[in-house]
Amino acid sequence: MVQAKTWILTKHFDGFPKDSNFELKVEELPEPKDGEVLLEAVFLSVDPYMRVFSRFSMNEGNMMIGTQVARVIQSKNPAFPVGSHVVARSGWRTHTVCDGTGLTPIMADWPQGVSLSLALGTIGMPGLTALYGIEEVLGLQKGETLLVNAAAGAVGSVVGQIAKLKGCKVVGSAGSDAKVAFLKKLGFDEAFNYKTVGSLEEALKKASPDGYDCFFENVGGSFSDVALQQMKNFGRIAVCGSISGYNDTTPQTGPYPHLTMIVKQLKMEGFMQTRWEHKHPESLKRLMGWLKEGKLQSREHVTKGFENMPAAFMGLLRGENIGKAIVAV
Amino acid sequence: MVQAKTWILTKHFDGFPKDSNFELKVEELPEPKDGEVLLEAVFLSVDPYMRVFSRFSMNEGNMMIGTQVARVIQSKNPAFPVGSHVVARSGWRTHTVCDGTGLTPIMADWPQGVSLSLALGTIGMPGLTALYGIEEVLGLQKGETLLVNAAAGAVGSVVGQIAKLKGCKVVGSAGSDAKVAFLKKLGFDEAFNYKTVGSLEEALKKASPDGYDCFFENVGGSFSDVALQQMKNFGRIAVCGSISGYNDTTPQTGPYPHLTMIVKQLKMEGFMQTRWEHKHPESLKRLMGWLKEGKLQSREHVTKGFENMPAAFMGLLRGENIGKAIVAV
Repeated sequence: MVQAKTWILTKHFDGFPKDSNFELKVEELPEPKDGEVLLEAVFLSVDPYMRVFSRFSMNEGNMMIGTQVARVIQSKNPAFPVGSHVVARSGWRTHTVCDGTGLTPIMADWPQGVSLSLALGTIGMPGLTALYGIEEVLGLQKGETLLVNAAAGAVGSVVGQIAKLKGCKVVGSAGSDAKVAFLKKLGFDEAFNYKTVGSLEEALKKASPDGYDCFFENVGGSFSDVALQQMKNFGRIAVCGSISGYNDTTPQTGPYPHLTMIVKQLKMEGFMQTRWEHKHPESLKRLMGWLKEGKLQSREHVTKGFENMPAAFMGLLRGENIGKAIVAV
Repeated sequence: MVQAKTWILTKHFDGFPKDSNFELKVEELPEPKDGEVLLEAVFLSVDPYMRVFSRFSMNEGNMMIGTQVARVIQSKNPAFPVGSHVVARSGWRTHTVCDGTGLTPIMADWPQGVSLSLALGTIGMPGLTALYGIEEVLGLQKGETLLVNAAAGAVGSVVGQIAKLKGCKVVGSAGSDAKVAFLKKLGFDEAFNYKTVGSLEEALKKASPDGYDCFFENVGGSFSDVALQQMKNFGRIAVCGSISGYNDTTPQTGPYPHLTMIVKQLKMEGFMQTRWEHKHPESLKRLMGWLKEGKLQSREHVTKGFENMPAAFMGLLRGENIGKAIVAV
């Protein structure tokens, strides 16, 4: 009999998440039946979307939503042999019994030296989000200038690197000097710490005096007001996240963007990577290709221990991570 | 010697325009030289964009910007014979001496029974704005549901009619019962007076319980907040105007749209008809074709007398017009 540890959302978040929003529970799992497998979590993901979707898609008392890399430790399903690894949308739990539904085997030729945790980051949902945002939403062209905020995060850091691969000038904003140093190491042309620049407007102007063709938006709020004013005519904005507002108890307000959007003829589009799910296998191969060629660097902020998942999640929302925030069981 | 009356912006608008923002001046015009013509205004346009662009493109003491239909009354330019009519971006003035630059002859086969004033409305800039917003920005498809606000205005009334031509369901919002009656007459499927519905949210839900595929946005402000929530997934929004905010002394603020845009994967695009100037001749022919076939009705709110231009402009900003606001000299 296997015991699974799970993290429950006891109460919906009201403002910034607290320890008391979470409860660790243990449940006994049944033996896998025909067609089922028993999974053991190896790496779990914490991501900003969890803060948002907890409200839409969860009830109090539900297990926290999330994706993990898991090892198959028992199998009565020939598609998932013991010892193989899968990406599973199982939630915050150490062990899972399930039929194969919703399990994605790790890429067949996953290289030996590459941590499987990257299947939750650069070679997973955040990497796909970066790729689709650039190619499908922005249609970023060689020679253009791209702005990305929360640039040292799981998505932003890949956005900047892919934009460089495409021959663009990349400007990144992040919230600490260590993050700015990381961005420079990744090859960003310009990077600044928005918390210390004094004037965000001046920082954006200095980094690209001619303005920005494209803006990969992860932050929202007042950052977006200022960035909008620095867009070139016909600028495009991919709205991927708005982390500055996720923990607001009353929504932030700002000036309406309409007039600026009309005069500059700007385009803004909100998106989620699920829209292009049919392209995922091919896209993951492209990302892995760039990684193997050394064109895509990947950094992780690893928290050890399943019991520390709430802490890792809250740390992520406070911006403590550089690169992808991962929990290693 | 011809005397031209002109309307000067004596002081930039601060809040709602006042009589004291304008001054009527008279100037003596020289005789046209070789290559020049003398124009006499027949119809002048007042449009919401003038309120916006006065701040960007005019200095105090400049003549008000604007377009007119004028008759050539003297000509030393064979391209513009005496008695012919042109659309001229001459500003608020009764007479103009100019070389041909910026003059567009009225369509060669303009039908006898159609007032030339329509070259400032349905068969002019507002009609083109409606057409490009629908075809180039929204890509409106047969069977979709479109929302348009300020629907009884010069642009909105054409938007709704073209959307009907394309086999769409059209919902219009306007600010008086007379305007709502006009929209019904034009063939709008649903129309309501946003000032008397009590709850805009309920009115939008009632008019289209499944939500909206497309939204042609002329109003901005809190209308946009409510409308955004009624968009379907993958909804498209053409941002054409935001008249509710044009006279604000301090800009209105509202909740940021980011999260809604992400979750519903919405696209918003600001635009001006000038982007497709190369298509204007062909587009005007299409609009005229629909008009001649009786598929496009046109209504005008005509103010008589050049001296009443400021009053006509202020009336427009107060929403007094049904259809295109025109001044007949």
